[in-house]
Amino acid sequence: MILTVTLNTALDMTYRVPALRPGASHRVSEVTERPGGKGLNVARVLAALGHEVTATGFAGGATGRCLREQLAGTPGLVDALVPVEGATRRTIAVVDGTTGDTTQLNEPGPVIAPAEWSAFVSLYGDLLSSASAVALCGSLPPGVPVGAYAQLVRTAHAMDVPVLLDTSGEPLRRGVAARPDIVKPNAEELAELTGSHEPLRATRDARRRGAHAVVASLGAQGLLAVTAEGRWRTTPPARMRGNPTGAGDSVVAGLLSGLVEQLPWPDRLARAAALSAATVLAPVAGEFDRKDYEELLGSVAVTGEASAA
Amino acid sequence: MILTVTLNTALDMTYRVPALRPGASHRVSEVTERPGGKGLNVARVLAALGHEVTATGFAGGATGRCLREQLAGTPGLVDALVPVEGATRRTIAVVDGTTGDTTQLNEPGPVIAPAEWSAFVSLYGDLLSSASAVALCGSLPPGVPVGAYAQLVRTAHAMDVPVLLDTSGEPLRRGVAARPDIVKPNAEELAELTGSHEPLRATRDARRRGAHAVVASLGAQGLLAVTAEGRWRTTPPARMRGNPTGAGDSVVAGLLSGLVEQLPWPDRLARAAALSAATVLAPVAGEFDRKDYEELLGSVAVTGEASAA
Repeated sequence: MILTVTLNTALDMTYRVPALRPGASHRVSEVTERPGGKGLNVARVLAALGHEVTATGFAGGATGRCLREQLAGTPGLVDALVPVEGATRRTIAVVDGTTGDTTQLNEPGPVIAPAEWSAFVSLYGDLLSSASAVALCGSLPPGVPVGAYAQLVRTAHAMDVPVLLDTSGEPLRRGVAARPDIVKPNAEELAELTGSHEPLRATRDARRRGAHAVVASLGAQGLLAVTAEGRWRTTPPARMRGNPTGAGDSVVAGLLSGLVEQLPWPDRLARAAALSAATVLAPVAGEFDRKDYEELLGSVAVTGEASAA
Repeated sequence: MILTVTLNTALDMTYRVPALRPGASHRVSEVTERPGGKGLNVARVLAALGHEVTATGFAGGATGRCLREQLAGTPGLVDALVPVEGATRRTIAVVDGTTGDTTQLNEPGPVIAPAEWSAFVSLYGDLLSSASAVALCGSLPPGVPVGAYAQLVRTAHAMDVPVLLDTSGEPLRRGVAARPDIVKPNAEELAELTGSHEPLRATRDARRRGAHAVVASLGAQGLLAVTAEGRWRTTPPARMRGNPTGAGDSVVAGLLSGLVEQLPWPDRLARAAALSAATVLAPVAGEFDRKDYEELLGSVAVTGEASAA
């Protein structure tokens, strides 16, 4: 199975209102709720692709119960979340029906106690023994040490499990130094890590800092991959209109599934780009339509070159 | 015991953000949650005054569980909510830390099934047999017949239990015709019921429509009561600054506790006005400080006259 780690899970809620006006009272016309946090999004996409996935991380309180009830309905996905005392955070996306703008309200989330972190680290080691790959995704909740991802990367290496890291800021900086197999920063995370806004230079620099491969997701500019096997760029099928929420998580799922299926890099990148584009097209954030994905897969262009062996 | 009915309960959440900007992403700095819906607010105030209270109505889903867990921590309050299939609604008050403005987001709430409504009506009859008074408070959820309050008023009469009604629109119009002992409209509800914006005329008209007593809560203008025993007006202690959320529910609790203690009308009104003012002063919406209340009780002026016997 593929293991995904989401230390800062969330119950993602979407509210639709006719028009958002600060200071006014609004009747919410539509409420949707789904399990959130980057690693859970990755897990759902992997499950939809037919992979067996185990999702770990933390969940607690009434919101955590809600989240787990909803995960239980996802075929192919095993819930291995560690129960915590605090309540899982909610995020609310308020969608304005007139402008289409989204206003995001993110709760801070629970503080993880030292004993809860230890319980996770122990379970993580157990789960790795049957994992073909692991994705470490998203921000760290309060209470988890800032070097957490570096530690989890080293544990995966010690057990010969390939590891992908998708985070930002100091946890990314420290995690990269522990030499993960793949990191997938977006343009902003890459610039923060390297100090450079020039994508190719920054991607190469990120690799020099320790990552075996760097796949930068550059939005409308597609993916830029610098790896030991060569470097490539994808061109998205066409200018996409839609909701980019979860598009980066679909890239992670595409890369990870391609890795465990031992696809060559260009095929992994084409899959990741097509999944990402299908996610942007889907009306519900973080979902994708299988037919859209398969059609898009044929129209993604991957250009670049393999390194000399 | 005093019975309170809240057919449209809610989990009231408050989010504090530094400044609310539509289209932006916000980190919520503080999250609070409390059981809400007018009747539950009334029940909490009555319990704080030392009365035994039973709260009924509907609760369901994860939000309903949350709400009941929090009610369980209120001394003197018995939870007799009827479980329903749908999830209890949330309301979110987003407080802007810069302007102090509150933006309200209210979920629609669950549809009540006919069998759930029947289960409630049956329990309501049982609970009335040990009630000294009953308060029917707030809006009707979808699925409950628009004449619900009229039916509940008649049942209370048949069992000789005095009944106070606090609602709006068509449920108020129909409920008043069933001759409740007290109705407590605010200025807007009174105008909608009677078509008159002149408070004394409108209050008298509301009484002619069937209510034995009408207590209009007119915000900064205080309370105006027209009853069979006479008519009175309260003058709030001074121009109050604070959060008016829940002030009307404190008026209901004051009136109802005064009724079961058989206080004369002027004393009931003084209590209701002082509780309402203490609620406005309290930093947390719908709470009040006992000492504030007792001090304010001394400074509320009640003017008016008893009817000739």
